[in-house]
Amino acid sequence: MTILDDPSITAVPGFRAAGVACGLKKTGALDMALVVSEVPCRAAAVFTTNRVKAAPVLHDQAILARNRTGIRAVVANSGGANACTGDQGARDAAQMSALVAAQLGCNPDDVLVMSTGVIGHRLDMAKVATGIADAAAHLSAAGGHAAARAIMTTDTRPKEYGLTFNVEPFTPFRAGCSTLNVAGMAKGAGMIHPNMATMLCLIITDTAISADLLDSALRYAVDRSFHRITVDGDTSTNDTVLLLANGRAGNPEIQDPDSPDFLEFRRALTHVATELAKMVARDGEGATKFVAVNVKGARAEAEAVQAGMAVARSNLVKTALFGRDANWGRVLAAVGYSGVEIDPNTISLWFGVTGGDVMQLVASGQPLPLDEKRALAILSEPDIDITVDLSLGSAEATVWTCDFSYDYVRINAAYRT
Amino acid sequence: MTILDDPSITAVPGFRAAGVACGLKKTGALDMALVVSEVPCRAAAVFTTNRVKAAPVLHDQAILARNRTGIRAVVANSGGANACTGDQGARDAAQMSALVAAQLGCNPDDVLVMSTGVIGHRLDMAKVATGIADAAAHLSAAGGHAAARAIMTTDTRPKEYGLTFNVEPFTPFRAGCSTLNVAGMAKGAGMIHPNMATMLCLIITDTAISADLLDSALRYAVDRSFHRITVDGDTSTNDTVLLLANGRAGNPEIQDPDSPDFLEFRRALTHVATELAKMVARDGEGATKFVAVNVKGARAEAEAVQAGMAVARSNLVKTALFGRDANWGRVLAAVGYSGVEIDPNTISLWFGVTGGDVMQLVASGQPLPLDEKRALAILSEPDIDITVDLSLGSAEATVWTCDFSYDYVRINAAYRT
Repeated sequence: MTILDDPSITAVPGFRAAGVACGLKKTGALDMALVVSEVPCRAAAVFTTNRVKAAPVLHDQAILARNRTGIRAVVANSGGANACTGDQGARDAAQMSALVAAQLGCNPDDVLVMSTGVIGHRLDMAKVATGIADAAAHLSAAGGHAAARAIMTTDTRPKEYGLTFNVEPFTPFRAGCSTLNVAGMAKGAGMIHPNMATMLCLIITDTAISADLLDSALRYAVDRSFHRITVDGDTSTNDTVLLLANGRAGNPEIQDPDSPDFLEFRRALTHVATELAKMVARDGEGATKFVAVNVKGARAEAEAVQAGMAVARSNLVKTALFGRDANWGRVLAAVGYSGVEIDPNTISLWFGVTGGDVMQLVASGQPLPLDEKRALAILSEPDIDITVDLSLGSAEATVWTCDFSYDYVRINAAYRT
Repeated sequence: MTILDDPSITAVPGFRAAGVACGLKKTGALDMALVVSEVPCRAAAVFTTNRVKAAPVLHDQAILARNRTGIRAVVANSGGANACTGDQGARDAAQMSALVAAQLGCNPDDVLVMSTGVIGHRLDMAKVATGIADAAAHLSAAGGHAAARAIMTTDTRPKEYGLTFNVEPFTPFRAGCSTLNVAGMAKGAGMIHPNMATMLCLIITDTAISADLLDSALRYAVDRSFHRITVDGDTSTNDTVLLLANGRAGNPEIQDPDSPDFLEFRRALTHVATELAKMVARDGEGATKFVAVNVKGARAEAEAVQAGMAVARSNLVKTALFGRDANWGRVLAAVGYSGVEIDPNTISLWFGVTGGDVMQLVASGQPLPLDEKRALAILSEPDIDITVDLSLGSAEATVWTCDFSYDYVRINAAYRT
């Protein structure tokens, strides 16, 4: 696999994109993204588990129930989530599909919609219409970066990642290897908690793959990426991860879930999704540190994730990390209330710098003498690893989060104003 | 029922208490409380559900398994939670019972222990021993207030509440009514989340009641009080609610769970526990507002609590309240991810001032026009009511929390320093 130096969704052949400003954001920043495929795409999606679902989520779910092989475009706006907007919100989401379809000459059912921003306010549809027309006029094969900027809300930077990989010939019928591309863009940065967050992500590939396997691969990837990050423990109404595949790479269509091609595609997709998810956690609202919580020695991977997410979600752990305070007891307390059946007498704990000094704090439930100076040096670094060994089994998992600073409160105390 | 004007645990006849400073707190503030009964008490307790339990929790659980009718004293220190302190921590908790027993001339098994403060550091047992001796020398019938101060950590004020009530004669064998007393003290103020928090509470009564009914009444009361508050969503290692009954009131011993006397006692106990729990939420770390979340129209009371706790726990709801921002969509989002099967199209929502103006924001899933000026006036008040009507049934519940301010982060970023 080769990681793209300058990743964007338009690095994948056959896609054009644009990002424009239509006034939904008061600041005048980019707020309308349009991504268009030359040919109909197979599509898969994972949506928020929140029972209060935003209008575009319900709209996309309805479209994908009818059409998951002919998607032509995705329109995404920031500056308004179109959530808790009642019946009018549903009509507005449908209208966004229709406006894009009119521009492209396709069916409204071929256009998926994503929205992010404040909840509970109607979108200004006059601005939306102007934005869609403007974006359609500016579609280009270099437009991926602008599209990634247009979906930002409190994000401090765009989030893009991509890679290319080869699937080798493995039957006598195949002449040579095919080069496949997977690239994605995502936005955070608050309401980030698995199952999921006001987190939008669009991943694009030119891989030829059946719709069922596309769906299977996306669920696998999201379970190991976006479902393993948390910023604030709030699950949003709008979370959407879309995956489009235009089949342009010319590889023999992947149809067998046990084939090397499928496993390689899924591995690449999981890699892209994980890197995008980590970017979201790293750019969490107010974050000053990026934190990986590794739980090993668990009885099952799901329990490792559960224990890790309790630590990653703990306000007390996160404020201590912001304060560079080695208050490790809060980590054990979080593991203790995670719901996982742990034994306090077998837990060991380490704090470390990613790729650097690692310091053990607890050994089999017994606290070790704390070298405060060394702990402060570790916690002063921007990338921190917390490792918990439950010593109950051999399963492990890593989840990602950020610290919790004054700025989180500042950002969220007056988000609408 | 009559609410005590100047409540303290020593308002209940037969109890003496003291609060002294022994240097566990660097500030020199009171940090050692001792409460002693003239006669052996029946005792009941509810402890943290955290699997990482502090040494005093495990110690008290072991004592109460052997002895729930002969408790003579409770010793409680702040300035150190004696949690995650390994085998030595267990020995230290047992030593605290032994030190008190030596002072009082009773059995170590007659002395319960509570600790609160930072996790993961051993108590300085020389200071503890000095503190216990000093407290024993200062026991008095006016010592309740000092004891309540001695268990404070980041609390800004002590939390005490009490009341007296009469049980009426209801059989020809009873000559007159008995006057019963119930009084308690509690401390917060972070790691507050049901099941429970670094929350210590001691409630005392002179009611004569069987040990089984004492336990039953306490569980009922805690379910409706301390299990309905949250400050930060972190469940502590040390949470303890103790209830002691010395039987001095002279009422015929309560032995029948269906008797008016039991129901009246339980009602009084629940009232005291609820008022203390609300004091804890009101004094949450960094709190500027006290928030009651009322959920009605639920299918079951447990679902009303579950939906209410999701709102009360939401960092995004709480930072918006701190910012006086009527970002009501975050309330609906929290109800949506609470796990309760709700219908977004039947939800209604109100923000109000406790005892004052109430403003509807959502009617049956449809947003109403928002009068920002009126909303700001409501959210500028210190006591806020959020009311959610799910319109699915007739069950309801109220839970309590506080807002989430810069000061929460400040307090917890450097708690140990």
